[in-house]
Amino acid sequence: MNDKSKKVPEVVIKRLPRYYRYLGELLKQDIKRISSNALSEKMNVTASQIRQDFNYFGGFGQQGYGYNVEHLYGEIGDILGLHDDDTFIIVGAGNLGRALANHDTFEKRGFRLVGIFDNDKNIIGTKINGIEISDADNIEDFLKHNRVDIAILTVPREAVMETAERLTGCGVKGLMNFSYTELDFDRDVAVENVHLSDSLMTLSYKIKSNKN
Amino acid sequence: MNDKSKKVPEVVIKRLPRYYRYLGELLKQDIKRISSNALSEKMNVTASQIRQDFNYFGGFGQQGYGYNVEHLYGEIGDILGLHDDDTFIIVGAGNLGRALANHDTFEKRGFRLVGIFDNDKNIIGTKINGIEISDADNIEDFLKHNRVDIAILTVPREAVMETAERLTGCGVKGLMNFSYTELDFDRDVAVENVHLSDSLMTLSYKIKSNKN
Repeated sequence: MNDKSKKVPEVVIKRLPRYYRYLGELLKQDIKRISSNALSEKMNVTASQIRQDFNYFGGFGQQGYGYNVEHLYGEIGDILGLHDDDTFIIVGAGNLGRALANHDTFEKRGFRLVGIFDNDKNIIGTKINGIEISDADNIEDFLKHNRVDIAILTVPREAVMETAERLTGCGVKGLMNFSYTELDFDRDVAVENVHLSDSLMTLSYKIKSNKN
Repeated sequence: MNDKSKKVPEVVIKRLPRYYRYLGELLKQDIKRISSNALSEKMNVTASQIRQDFNYFGGFGQQGYGYNVEHLYGEIGDILGLHDDDTFIIVGAGNLGRALANHDTFEKRGFRLVGIFDNDKNIIGTKINGIEISDADNIEDFLKHNRVDIAILTVPREAVMETAERLTGCGVKGLMNFSYTELDFDRDVAVENVHLSDSLMTLSYKIKSNKN
């Protein structure tokens, strides 16, 4: 048995970014505090679920007061590690890689793009969002001289395993994989496999169940 | 009170595409049946959770046998409505729109791309993946003459609300929104707001908790 009982469940972790985003929206609207009921209603999670979730981190509410929005936003940002100047690279500079390189929300959340790599000689040396595309052959050398926390993989499916192994072999601890394969590493490498077609399938289900 | 008690919970719906993908992988490996324990272990969901999930749809297992992979794959595909020849359009033909238009997994899941729209005169008339980019001004006309089930929105944030209203006003029942705003419609329009930065935040959390 490993120490899983102490770990925060995956579903709770997955809700943290949603809480964070939503609190950010409240802050923009200059809302200073919110009851757990109001937070619950807006986020489609029960109030007791929210309290349970927050209890994994010591709880943030105050009986009868609700939540202080700015404080909670800061705390969840800390828990998510958004104030640590995390850096990332993008491997694969096709349309999706380009879209992600231009995706300003990553920067807004505290992630800094420090490199883009591809193996297409025709685009190596050109720039996206001010960053030059480097030869993918030089990834190891780059990682030797630059701290990189996360790599976003937008390479073809058949190249993803090898690329992931090269990156993690050089110390990259987090992979965001868009290649429609299920990457799975040991505990010490975190992986998020992004399946864009899941959202389409969910929509398909909902459309049909709305009809009934 | 609406009839929510009878509805399948959102978390269950969200797991269906994962079950479907995983069963598809098993089929490729020519695996004919799987115990709920083996399914559970691979998918990181408890066996009792899997049984509960499937019970929303009548249950598919057989005591002592486990699940027939091909049958279950077909059933979940049916539940998700993947055999209904759903059609979709993409509104916004920037890098992300292009990447999605070339995304062969959508087609593999049974979704058919029938139109791409943009308002940039320089690209209207050019083709992506064999489909001509049309003038976004003509969306209403297109929807009058073509059945479109789902629209993928990759327009700038400030245009998303108006675009969504035009589409749903013409009968589109499902929206996949990449514009980093929370679209929210009445029951009869299904929305999936895709937040790519959520995966980065989750990774950030996991990297730090792996360190401890």
